[in-house]
Amino acid sequence: MAPDTDRECGRRFDAGFHDEFGALLAWRRDVRRFLPDAIAPALVEELLAKAHTAPSVGNSQPWRFVLVESAEARAWVRESFLRANADALADLSGERAATYARLKLSGLDVAPVQIAVFCDEATEQGAGLGRRTMPETLAYSVVCAIHTLWLAARAYGLGLGWVSILEPEVVTKSLNVPSEWRLIAYLCLGLPEEEHLDPELERAGWQDRQGLKERIVKR
Amino acid sequence: MAPDTDRECGRRFDAGFHDEFGALLAWRRDVRRFLPDAIAPALVEELLAKAHTAPSVGNSQPWRFVLVESAEARAWVRESFLRANADALADLSGERAATYARLKLSGLDVAPVQIAVFCDEATEQGAGLGRRTMPETLAYSVVCAIHTLWLAARAYGLGLGWVSILEPEVVTKSLNVPSEWRLIAYLCLGLPEEEHLDPELERAGWQDRQGLKERIVKR
Repeated sequence: MAPDTDRECGRRFDAGFHDEFGALLAWRRDVRRFLPDAIAPALVEELLAKAHTAPSVGNSQPWRFVLVESAEARAWVRESFLRANADALADLSGERAATYARLKLSGLDVAPVQIAVFCDEATEQGAGLGRRTMPETLAYSVVCAIHTLWLAARAYGLGLGWVSILEPEVVTKSLNVPSEWRLIAYLCLGLPEEEHLDPELERAGWQDRQGLKERIVKR
Repeated sequence: MAPDTDRECGRRFDAGFHDEFGALLAWRRDVRRFLPDAIAPALVEELLAKAHTAPSVGNSQPWRFVLVESAEARAWVRESFLRANADALADLSGERAATYARLKLSGLDVAPVQIAVFCDEATEQGAGLGRRTMPETLAYSVVCAIHTLWLAARAYGLGLGWVSILEPEVVTKSLNVPSEWRLIAYLCLGLPEEEHLDPELERAGWQDRQGLKERIVKR
């Protein structure tokens, strides 16, 4: 499977690593059920340091991490989730509504670490390179950092849940950050109550995973 | 550094893996200088299978991969890059313009594998869960798949370059995909000519990496 070459590389990764990395991807789940146990600040810092190695357009590194620690700020976010979730449920009817109502969609009540991740849309870093025709790549860079943090968390036995059922303007105002910062994600982080290979939304009968083949075309 | 618990987990990753995963992140670069050597189709498939394990909002799996193989399609994309790049250069002046003109910003001329990655904005998979207030999470799911592919490629000794200096509408039309598919990225993939720990934009004097500390605030 490895490319057929004996060229020198900066760093080689062997079949053992390929397997373990595959297992990391397979066990990476969106977690909503956390243990309340505190996470060492040094570990959170290590995860953020890993996230900080993510690729970014023009080397702009536009990610900004807000560690949401105060009870007041957490309450605002939780209230925003409850409103947004009630609105989403109100849009549904019948079987779908019943299933939705049974889902657990966030770990905001228990997760010991909560991080709001923003994109600094006003950053001058990178001098605009690479985002003239596709300005959305700035936000995409922040997503790469979030995904890096997610995988790193799982490698250390932590679960991460990405909460998007929120009112982004309300959360942004509640956290009192610069108006040029755009909310990309609100993350819950902590020890997971349980571990699974299949997504919770699949187990709960909301949405199965589909195949890869129909997602590939050639031109 | 590991969380202090003896709870059973689905899968444990040890310190050796933490180190190797850190090395993978450190050696993951945006590559624009490729060898023309062909890449085995089975390896490309393996990378796409890894990408397909990415997280997605509501389990929507909205990524669509277009393997751009025909000389005609590749020429359209290259022409779009040349136009967008000339426009970007025309916006600059003085030192910045001179530096920009010297940069190598894509591997479109040589990269043996080229993949246009789209988001199917019309997908019904996931039934809209999680994207009522933040619809952009659908595109963000595709970014997670791209980032997964990027890391997997590097693990197998391949380099990946994300080209965003393109006219997205032109590329979308050239590739004759459904109008609901939104271009997220155009990827070049192949054996890298050289390996580096520092970004090419840093080496070329465009943009240094900055520190993490000023990117973290508490609330």
